[in-house]
Formats: sequence, structure tokens, C-alpha cells
Amino acid sequence: MFESAEIGHTIDDATYDAQVPALREALLEAQFELKEQGRFPVLVLISGIEGAGKGETVKLLNEWMDPRLIEVSTFDQPTDEELARPPAWRYWRKLPPKGRTGIFFGTWYSQMLQARIGGRIDDARLDQAIDIAGRLERMLSDEGALIFKFWFHLSKKRMKERLKALNDDPLHSWRLSSLDWQQSKTYDKFVRHGERVLRRTNRDFAPWYVIEGTDANYRSLSVGRILLEGLQAALRREGAARSSPHAAPLVSSLDNRALLDALDMTQALDKAEYQERLLVEQARLAGLMRDKRMRQHALLAVFEGNDAAGKGGAIRRVTGALDPRQYRIVAVASPTDEELAQPYLWRFWRHIPARGKFTIFDRSWYGRVLVERVEGLCSEVDWLRSYGEINDFEEELTGAGVVVVKFWLAIDPQTQLERFKAREATPFKRFKITPDDWRNRDKWAAYCDAVGDMVDRTSTGIAPWTLVEANDKYFARVKILRTLNEALERAFRG
Amino acid sequence: MFESAEIGHTIDDATYDAQVPALREALLEAQFELKEQGRFPVLVLISGIEGAGKGETVKLLNEWMDPRLIEVSTFDQPTDEELARPPAWRYWRKLPPKGRTGIFFGTWYSQMLQARIGGRIDDARLDQAIDIAGRLERMLSDEGALIFKFWFHLSKKRMKERLKALNDDPLHSWRLSSLDWQQSKTYDKFVRHGERVLRRTNRDFAPWYVIEGTDANYRSLSVGRILLEGLQAALRREGAARSSPHAAPLVSSLDNRALLDALDMTQALDKAEYQERLLVEQARLAGLMRDKRMRQHALLAVFEGNDAAGKGGAIRRVTGALDPRQYRIVAVASPTDEELAQPYLWRFWRHIPARGKFTIFDRSWYGRVLVERVEGLCSEVDWLRSYGEINDFEEELTGAGVVVVKFWLAIDPQTQLERFKAREATPFKRFKITPDDWRNRDKWAAYCDAVGDMVDRTSTGIAPWTLVEANDKYFARVKILRTLNEALERAFRG
Repeated sequence: MFESAEIGHTIDDATYDAQVPALREALLEAQFELKEQGRFPVLVLISGIEGAGKGETVKLLNEWMDPRLIEVSTFDQPTDEELARPPAWRYWRKLPPKGRTGIFFGTWYSQMLQARIGGRIDDARLDQAIDIAGRLERMLSDEGALIFKFWFHLSKKRMKERLKALNDDPLHSWRLSSLDWQQSKTYDKFVRHGERVLRRTNRDFAPWYVIEGTDANYRSLSVGRILLEGLQAALRREGAARSSPHAAPLVSSLDNRALLDALDMTQALDKAEYQERLLVEQARLAGLMRDKRMRQHALLAVFEGNDAAGKGGAIRRVTGALDPRQYRIVAVASPTDEELAQPYLWRFWRHIPARGKFTIFDRSWYGRVLVERVEGLCSEVDWLRSYGEINDFEEELTGAGVVVVKFWLAIDPQTQLERFKAREATPFKRFKITPDDWRNRDKWAAYCDAVGDMVDRTSTGIAPWTLVEANDKYFARVKILRTLNEALERAFRG
Repeated sequence: MFESAEIGHTIDDATYDAQVPALREALLEAQFELKEQGRFPVLVLISGIEGAGKGETVKLLNEWMDPRLIEVSTFDQPTDEELARPPAWRYWRKLPPKGRTGIFFGTWYSQMLQARIGGRIDDARLDQAIDIAGRLERMLSDEGALIFKFWFHLSKKRMKERLKALNDDPLHSWRLSSLDWQQSKTYDKFVRHGERVLRRTNRDFAPWYVIEGTDANYRSLSVGRILLEGLQAALRREGAARSSPHAAPLVSSLDNRALLDALDMTQALDKAEYQERLLVEQARLAGLMRDKRMRQHALLAVFEGNDAAGKGGAIRRVTGALDPRQYRIVAVASPTDEELAQPYLWRFWRHIPARGKFTIFDRSWYGRVLVERVEGLCSEVDWLRSYGEINDFEEELTGAGVVVVKFWLAIDPQTQLERFKAREATPFKRFKITPDDWRNRDKWAAYCDAVGDMVDRTSTGIAPWTLVEANDKYFARVKILRTLNEALERAFRG
């Protein structure tokens, strides 16, 4: 969920300085139009990791925008007046009226996360709090509010560096509260529970925007652009902003660095090493599948990837050492009539493995947010809502002991081109290359965006995505088998 | 929540026999049209009290409708195949395809209720299950499904009578499983947790229809009519049925017996008795408000009722013996500009009492489902969704220790007419009667429906409605004070 916010986005000062004046002017204009229309309020929620630039961003927005039309509310310790009333009262009294913008710094999400990390509530109570927050946001949205939820993130490494740098600097060390240090220690908990919260509350009418907090230029421009584009889209829309998806981009790779670009595509294995390690991993998988703890689990692997990335070959290596009664490969093609007459996920539910079994999906339910999104085969509303539905689906699977492993096999355009040409030149492989494949190549960038969004929105602790650098088939196959084995072993340990 | 399903609805055989043929024909026609359009599936969920006619209704629908286009699935003990997969799998495999109708007998609601009543899960886990069900239904609805949820209810008394009658009859006693008897014992639990489930899952795109199960004629006609009207409305609608409210009536008082008609309006007190009891109850309230346990609570009373039902007089008697620093009366009139710029509930949140205090709302947030609904001042979508929002709101209040007491002061049309005339004749009361009041009288029936729906959908264990027979002002005032006192005492006992 935080993958795209850990790749070290940066924007240099020259670019930043060139873009800011126009952005500020446009934001002021949108703010004025918001007031003139007076149709709906804007609510901006600021959450995330300590030290990732939340405070700086709020300060900046206050500078950039017209302070008469914006109000920042911080929700730290409740006052006596607030303590005497139901918990939601403090939020209601600070809601922005129509035409205005309210920035909530430290929201209901901060409260529930602190309670969960402190061990004062368990997962079930956290889910109750999440549910209450979800219903509140839906109501606000139904009443017309435009809601932006920002989550500021830092990788653990960068968080530590940042805290150390601040601490070593006598001018800044005063900024570190004990809470900062405590959060550094409890980073893992914060991220794990935070992910649960984001997964559950990432709905089309109020999506989360995860912002990498390392670089101030990148952080500020991203937030400013998302606000501007979302606001402009809502101002153009007829009627209330209610329950409509935001028009802002899901990924805002302002620095043109997407998740897939951050992969090291040079990784490779030589043939001898490959053959040795392949045998080891295959034997390990066969052993795990026969382990008696497998009776409490099922294994489900999803294979997605660029055309010609080697999915088929990889799948054959996975099943190579397995008993055919244990596994099943489901090749996902166009839906049948029967499948079209059912909800989208029905045709995948049919093939869910029973306990002890292994199902391999060669392409999957992610088709909706990949090919269907890119090719315009379903409406924006439909693919936007499917991220949440897919997360719910996978949560049901993993909750019942199914181990879900998802692979994206990534190759670069040059490698793909070579493979396409090789296929055309090989008589028995010629059927594997179609005009569609050539057309898809033209949409390379659109697919990259779609993959980035998909990973950001559906890579979860319970069902993470594994990005596989697949320029070298040997490397890819071994990585896939190893990942499957590690996932099963983790599940067996409980 | 079950109020309207405990007043003994009946339909005589002659009426029933006269109506059934046309209903069946129309249902068959709608079913055929559903198949022809092939745009969406229909899902009918059957839940509720044991012995309230669930099985008979399913049997009847099977007879009435074309069996080739309808499939009944019962979810009793899961099969081995089902046990080997995630819990939702058994529902997915039975989903009706587009153009068809699926009847689910014993649904996810039965499972979660049985687990809660059996003590295998607590409220927080029940809420998790409710949340999962809610997201499943929203997804189905977003995918186009038309969902009907029926809850069959019997009052405790009728349930016992029915079980006894069946048991005494040798021809029928075989029908009583041990579960039936057990449910008779655990009736209170079933109703309490059932109400929590209904309150949380009663959403506009998939509302609950509570059916009184006593009289087979009434039960069958009600279900048939709701299905028919909902189905016809969805067939007429362009595009998918997604997320649209049902068009079926919320109350189906087929026998013209509404909740308010079931009140005994002759109840009265003579003056001496009134004066004595009023003093006793006023002293009791004053004592309770000074009790130190009041520091953990707040008291909130809602007064709604017919025009001239005596709200003002009753409120004065409530506050008669109280310290003015302890209470506040909020007279709800037209919203201010500031209030109009906020979500609907904002203007009520402002006045929520702090701990130890008492707020009286003279008219309230129920205006949305009363006057605004009847006078068409807000859209159907808005007032339909507000039932759920109001329940969420009151749950937040009661969860924080606020004791919520809601009164509907009911008078009959004749009494109202007399009071209107008396007001016109009394100089200092003339301001109390306006042309609006006379106009509202013409909408008496529409208001009765709105009150019935309101009570059915928002009278909950945590914040019940009290219907006050107010033809006699003395009786009404004493009942109101007594109800407030009892509610506080109950809260103090914890």
C-alpha cells in the first residue's frame, strides 16, 4: 500500500520554483470559485507517519491559500468541553461550511491508530472505529462534502535518517517530541495498522492519497496538484459533489518516477546457478504442499505481467514438481455468458481452492484495474470501486487460511520487443503473438500507471504484491518459487 | 424497530382470495419481464423469528412464481465442500444470474445471530460480521442486483401462543425442532441482537421489510406486494438498479391498520390524581438530576407530535421542578443560513448536552422524515438515507452515556379540531394557530405513514420511541415524566 511512497521521489528546486506560482494562482482561483458557488465544503484530512511533513504541509497550504476561506483544526488532547460530550462532537463543531475549506490535522484516524498501537483496543474494536469513520465520511459526502484524505509516509530507513538528522542538528533537535521517538520504535505497528485502516476506508467517494514525505518539493507539489485537480473537477460537476469519485490522478508521479521504474532490471542468474536453485525451490514447494499443516491452508497464486514477460514458463516451473491432484491452473480469458450474468468476482470465487489445494490464476480479477481500465472496457466508477471490493475479497480468503501470493512480472519495452520478434520468427511460437500485443505496446505508459495504482491500492500485509524483475527468466522463476515457499512457511509458522 | 409488526395485522379470507389472482399474474409478468430484460438479478433474503412463517412464505413464493426462473437456497449446516473454503463461498455459488430470482433462506444474518446468541462472538465481532455483510450487499447492488430483505417477526406473546398451538396439535408437533423451543427461551436475545443487525444494515439500497408473521393472509400479501412493487419499479428504471432506493412503500399497512391506530386513546387521568402524580414524578426527576451518577450521563428528550398535541405544556411540566442551570430547551425552527451551510445533523450536534445536563428538543432531527418528507422539502433519496444516519447519530450519543428519550404525542383528528377551534377563540392563544396548521390536517394520512415508518426504523433498544396517548393532557404529561424517570433509573443501574 505504501510501495510508491518508498521509492525516493524528488523534485529539484528549479522545477519546483517554476511550477509553484501557477499552482498557487490556480488554487486561489479555485478557492474563490468554491466560495462563489457556495455549493459544497471541502474537507482535507491530514494523517500519517510522524516526521513525514504533515505539519509543514499544513503550514504551506495556509500560506498558499486565502486564509479567510480556510481553517485548520488540530485535534490533540480534547478540551474539558469536548470530553463532556460524545467523541464525534469535536469534529462536528469544526466542520467547514459550504464554500469553505477545513483542514483537519490529527483526525479520527489518528485517535484510533494511537489506541490500537497503544494496545488499548483490539482489531475488532479498531474495525468498529473504522466503520464509524466510514459512515461519517459517507454521510458527509452524501451531504455534498468533497473529502481529501492525505497519508504522509516515509520508509523505515528514511524515517530513521530523518530523526537522526534532526536530532544531530542543535537547531532542530527541540522539534523531536518523545512521541516521535516512540513512533520510530513502533514504526512497524503504525504501518501495519495504518495499512488496515487505509485498506478499509479507501472508498471511491473519499480515497486516500499516499504522499512520500522525504522531499519537501515533491510533497508540496503533489498535495497542491491533487487538491487543485480534485477541486476543479468538483467545481465543474453539476449538482452536489456527492458520492462521485475524485478526478485527481490516483498516482501522481510528478517526477516521472513510477514504481516500476524503481526496479533493478539487470538482475540475472547464470544457467548453472538457475538449475541448481530451481531444483532446491521446487523440492521445497513439493515438501511444503505435503506438510500436514497444509490441511489448514490453501495456496492461491496470481500471475499478472507484461505480455511476453514469461508467465507461462514461470507457471510451468512452479508446478513442475507437484502432484497434479494438488493444483489447478485457471487461465482467465473472456468471461462466458454464464459469468457475464453474475457479479464481476463470481468467476473467480468459483475457482477458489479448497483447503490443502493450490490454484494458480494465469491473469486474474486484476483484469478490471488493468486491461479493462486501460482499454476503457468498464466505467471509471466501476474500476475505482473494484480496488475496495478486491481488498475485501482477498481479506475473506486470507481470513479463511488461504495464502494469497500475487506476482507482477515486469520486463522493459526493449526486452518485450525482442521477445515479440523472436516469437514471430519461431513457427511454433507464432500463435503467441497477435495484433493485440502490438497495440498494447503503444499503451505502455498507461499500463505503467495502472500497475502503480494497483500495487499502491491492493498490496496489503495480508496479500502483498511481489514485483518480479523478469528481463532474465531464470532470475524471475527462482524468485517466484522462493516467494511462494516463504509465504507458505510464514503461514505455517502462524 | 418491530413496533408495527406487533399490532396484530390481519386480512380476511375474502379480501385475500379476491386479491391473490391479480397479484400472482402481475408477479409472473414481472418475472418474465425480468428475464427478457436480463439486466439484473433479484436476491430475496429471508430472516427472522422462528415460527413466524419464513418457511411457509418461501413455499408460497415457489408456488406463485415461475419455478424455472426462481431458485431457493437454504443455508443450514455447511457441506464438506463449503467447510473447506472461505465462509462466503457458499453464498457466491448460489447467486442468481441476471434475469433470475434467488431466494436465500437462512442467510449470513442467521449465521451471525446464532453465533451472537450462542455467545460465541461478542458485539464487536458481530459488528465485524455486519460490516462484511454490508459491504457484500453494497457490492451486489453496485453490480446491479435488486435486493429484498425480509424479516419475519412475532411478538413474544404470539410466538408462545403459536408454539403452544403447534405443540398441542398432534398433526403439527413434529414440526417443532429443539431449535424452536430454544428460540422461544432466547426470544429476548434474538430480538435485541436482531435489532442491532437491522439497524446497522438497513441501507437505502437494501432496506429491511419487517413483516408481522401472525396472520398468513397478511404475511403472504405483504411479501407479494413488496416484491411486485419493488420489481416493477426496478424494471421501469433506466440502466442498472444500482444503489437506488426501492420504490416499494416502507410501511405496507395492507389492512389499513397503522401503528398509531393501535393506541388506546381513551386513557385519561382525573385532575386530583394528575396533580398528585405530577408532583411525585417531578420530585423524582429533580432528585435523579441531582444524583451523582448523573455526572456520567446526560439526558436528551425529543418532543414530536401532532399539532396541538400539547408539546409545549408537557415540556413546561417536565422542567417545572428543575434548576434552570441544568436544562436547556431547543426549539427547532427553520434552519439559519449558518445551519444551511452544514450537513443536516450539524444544527443538532451543536446542542448536545454536556455530561450532567439535560437538553429538550421541541421538534428535532426527525423533521427530515416527517415534515420534509411529507411536504416534499427534500428528495426521497435524502430522507430515505437519513434513517440510517439518525440511528448512527443516536448510537454515538448513547454510546457516550447520553440517555435519549423520544416522544411522539398523538391525538386523534377530532381532538385536534376541537383544540384548533378553542385556540382561535382564545385571544392569547390565537398566535398558536396558523393556516399551516389547517393545511397539515389535510395530510393527516401521509403524516400517519411517516410516523409509522419513523418509529419502525428508528425506535431502537438504545433510543426507543415512546408513543404518548395525548387526547388527555393529564395522562400524557404524567406518562412523559414517568418515562423520563424510568429511562434515567435504567441508565443509572447500568
